[in-house]
Amino acid sequence: MKSKMATTASDFFEQTKVPDNYDAKKQAMLQFVEFHRRKTTKIVLITSGGTTVPLESRTVRFIDNFSIGTRGASSAEHFLDSGYAVIFLHRHRSLEPYTRHFSQQTMLDALHVGEDDTISVDEAKAPNLRSILVKYKQSKSERRLLNVDFNAVGEYLYLLKAACQVLGQVGSKVMIYLAAAVSDFYIPSSEMPEHKIQSSGGPLQIHLQLVPKMLGPLVKEWVPQAFITSFKLETDVSLLESKARKALQTYDHQVVIANILETRKLEVVLITRDCAEKIALSEEQIKNNVAIEELIVEHLAAMHDSHITGELSNIDT
Amino acid sequence: MKSKMATTASDFFEQTKVPDNYDAKKQAMLQFVEFHRRKTTKIVLITSGGTTVPLESRTVRFIDNFSIGTRGASSAEHFLDSGYAVIFLHRHRSLEPYTRHFSQQTMLDALHVGEDDTISVDEAKAPNLRSILVKYKQSKSERRLLNVDFNAVGEYLYLLKAACQVLGQVGSKVMIYLAAAVSDFYIPSSEMPEHKIQSSGGPLQIHLQLVPKMLGPLVKEWVPQAFITSFKLETDVSLLESKARKALQTYDHQVVIANILETRKLEVVLITRDCAEKIALSEEQIKNNVAIEELIVEHLAAMHDSHITGELSNIDT
Repeated sequence: MKSKMATTASDFFEQTKVPDNYDAKKQAMLQFVEFHRRKTTKIVLITSGGTTVPLESRTVRFIDNFSIGTRGASSAEHFLDSGYAVIFLHRHRSLEPYTRHFSQQTMLDALHVGEDDTISVDEAKAPNLRSILVKYKQSKSERRLLNVDFNAVGEYLYLLKAACQVLGQVGSKVMIYLAAAVSDFYIPSSEMPEHKIQSSGGPLQIHLQLVPKMLGPLVKEWVPQAFITSFKLETDVSLLESKARKALQTYDHQVVIANILETRKLEVVLITRDCAEKIALSEEQIKNNVAIEELIVEHLAAMHDSHITGELSNIDT
Repeated sequence: MKSKMATTASDFFEQTKVPDNYDAKKQAMLQFVEFHRRKTTKIVLITSGGTTVPLESRTVRFIDNFSIGTRGASSAEHFLDSGYAVIFLHRHRSLEPYTRHFSQQTMLDALHVGEDDTISVDEAKAPNLRSILVKYKQSKSERRLLNVDFNAVGEYLYLLKAACQVLGQVGSKVMIYLAAAVSDFYIPSSEMPEHKIQSSGGPLQIHLQLVPKMLGPLVKEWVPQAFITSFKLETDVSLLESKARKALQTYDHQVVIANILETRKLEVVLITRDCAEKIALSEEQIKNNVAIEELIVEHLAAMHDSHITGELSNIDT
């Protein structure tokens, strides 16, 4: 089979089948945005978790990414705390805001069946349960959190585009926060075997094509007025800042958050056109279990406010 | 890099680094087995979930398998119901016995913070919570369930061998129930890049070697007296029975459970040296939410009893 170079975004969508439940998910996002649009709430689209790359069309095997979505889920909580409405576009079974704090085992361990057959909760076994529960219920009653899930990279990109189409009409009040770990590579469906790959064939060779970069059309066409933050994760510190700055030059969006695999929970660098600002937890903050996402969201929300003011004054002049 | 053919089991272990926490996990298995050995309890080792195949040594990407461990976790519950002690060797974050029935979201939805600030449980929102909770607590108080987790295929194989070394001394009272979806392919650490693979390199080629089949040494050397069940999952029905029968002839163990991806929750075929028995849920059972694992475990427990009797009479003669 002949190897092809990277396809364009529109070629990719033409070659990739529309995911299951696409219409229902797009409709849910539309209703969510309509609801909040009337209320002058700021809205953030958070993408979170890794995308899969199926190796067979009746998929048994796939390539995945180590992300379990801590960054995205933690950030979502802080955006909700800051008054945002949140579309949380996340990998199926990755961490979700609030629920992530209590594993299924923690929950069962904290429950007791009494002699009268009623179930009671031992809060000592689930620290912070009450305060998190209150926030979880509040996000539900105010309808400020919409969870939408994906698995494969094609499904993710379809839903990202759909979310942006819905959000594009809201203008500068929208932030796009691209924390998902999106695969750079994929196998076009035309080059994928139908059935499970057999080990009797001996050593295996897998040929992957490049996934087209969607940040270009996203910034230029899908949500041109939004405040857009992307992430750059590397394991090699010598590549990080140059790659982050290159991304900013290429796509001309607002912020790249650069982070290194090993230290990503302690420090990141916020790179904008004009500067690079390191954000790191102090020793005091580490001791008090402050999450770095709290600092990131605080910075971004302030920058987003300036962006909104700037866009509005652009319209005035 | 020159492609090599499949390595042997002992070569594989020599080339693969001992996993983190290996000693602690082996020690926990040893104590568990010692505890139950004195009590004439039957012991089953269940393996469950998919193994990962890291593509980089500082792993960002890996190949995975769609399994989330339903078969293994459901089977574990039925083995516990049948009086077995269970070592549950499972993929980290895959489904576990009992806890799997209640997602983190289900749990938070079922909890309410009252006006007096106490937390209460709405059992209507978590069906069967009480009965499952009672079984969960019982398995803990009787110390009949040991959870041990893994991620990469190398880690899995190290822990499988350790479990078998511990169980080998218990003889025919042991069942090995190999429900994990183990990768057929891997990348030897000597051929793995250290850092995250860059997309700037263009389309990607991945070369994978065959993982040596461990069922041979497992049956012949590690647990020669145990009752051993392996699984064969295919998407292509025309390959299934011949592949299952071939596995039985090659490794000379007791049972292969053959199943097809699409129908695996409704029917399986138990293949032994003498026969092939189809086990399928009746319409009545499907309506009543009976799990096929209940039927599988019932059949296997009876076969295991005969195996124990047979082994004992072999010793007598």
